[in-house]
Amino acid sequence: MRALSIIPVEGIGEIAVGDDLAGIIASAAELRDGDVVVVTQKIVSKAEGMLEAVDGDDPVSHKKIVERESVRVLRRRGDLIISETKHGFVCANAGVDLSNVERGYAALLPEDSDRSARRIRDGIKARASVDLAVIISDTFGRTWRRGLTDVAIGCAGIGAILDLRGSNDTYGREMLVTEVAVVDELASAAELVMGKASDIPVAIVRGIPNEWLRKGDVRSEIIRPPDEDLFR
Amino acid sequence: MRALSIIPVEGIGEIAVGDDLAGIIASAAELRDGDVVVVTQKIVSKAEGMLEAVDGDDPVSHKKIVERESVRVLRRRGDLIISETKHGFVCANAGVDLSNVERGYAALLPEDSDRSARRIRDGIKARASVDLAVIISDTFGRTWRRGLTDVAIGCAGIGAILDLRGSNDTYGREMLVTEVAVVDELASAAELVMGKASDIPVAIVRGIPNEWLRKGDVRSEIIRPPDEDLFR
Repeated sequence: MRALSIIPVEGIGEIAVGDDLAGIIASAAELRDGDVVVVTQKIVSKAEGMLEAVDGDDPVSHKKIVERESVRVLRRRGDLIISETKHGFVCANAGVDLSNVERGYAALLPEDSDRSARRIRDGIKARASVDLAVIISDTFGRTWRRGLTDVAIGCAGIGAILDLRGSNDTYGREMLVTEVAVVDELASAAELVMGKASDIPVAIVRGIPNEWLRKGDVRSEIIRPPDEDLFR
Repeated sequence: MRALSIIPVEGIGEIAVGDDLAGIIASAAELRDGDVVVVTQKIVSKAEGMLEAVDGDDPVSHKKIVERESVRVLRRRGDLIISETKHGFVCANAGVDLSNVERGYAALLPEDSDRSARRIRDGIKARASVDLAVIISDTFGRTWRRGLTDVAIGCAGIGAILDLRGSNDTYGREMLVTEVAVVDELASAAELVMGKASDIPVAIVRGIPNEWLRKGDVRSEIIRPPDEDLFR
């Protein structure tokens, strides 16, 4: 393995409905073949117009949107709702978020974040003639562990899971269950240079092995089907 | 924010009981002040002698150790047990692992991974005169999402959680619930250059903000107390 670089992309600026994210990213960053471009959900939702008016002084207004965006509520405690979204994500408040959004609006998750990733990837390819991967990231909580980490909610041009089943460990023993969620690890790595309070919504991870670059998506690879799931 | 580098440390070699990990790491890598040294649990467990003989041809032998290392079993399906360990981790098979261990042995989790991290950190400081952070990483599954990611099971010299409560988002609105589990994101970032089948058990993350370096530990910061927990 060689070293990786995690590079914050400066100068993205405010994103508004209809903005051409691919063009903006291609102008702001020196992109190379094989890069992984990690884009936060917030600016994808803004560009795609996934904003909804909310009365910021009325918590019920926010809660109503969360209930509507949930297909199933798993747990409630106080104002917190852990629910499954129509996309299959299980997260707090159905991914509906008031932070880093203009006052009076809530940001919903993109309709289809894998499709959003594909569009951005295709747009960058058309503009900058580079072949790379795109990940849409969001900030989720975890069971049993405090604190939030960024995970991938969509991807394109990269396998979401690196399947090492069938390869051997260093003792020559076949590894039976080792599927690494590399898109989630890449989203977490990118978050380290973004920071929640800063205005860096895009980062590049440079140097991943070329074998990781393939057709891939979060929906079919990462979302655990309910029948496999022990905690739903 | 500036760019980060994730650097694999080559040449660690096989680790045996009693080996001086701090010395081995300090010899293998050019370490700098402010680096984060991520060390996989497997070599820490080996150095600390946390190995137990197991009959590799008898799955019951492995299962007995898993049961003993569990203080509470949350779910069972087939051979898989999701349980809480005495350290407070909730993970598959109580962290007892047969891969990348000599045949005939299972690796248990270190007794106290925060203490292990502190010892390695102090040892490196004594040998190489550098002030840095150490994270002990392990590979865990997640609820609702397929695939494994590396997380921190111990740390020293770095805050496990970056608490952004009280800081403002880019719209000047105070962020209420934003505690980032940076040690878990750093463990995931490091995994990207390790690879499960390769023999890279140590990686360096270089370039994190100096403010992140402080006294910290996984046990008190990351482990979610049962009364806060909605899924136990």
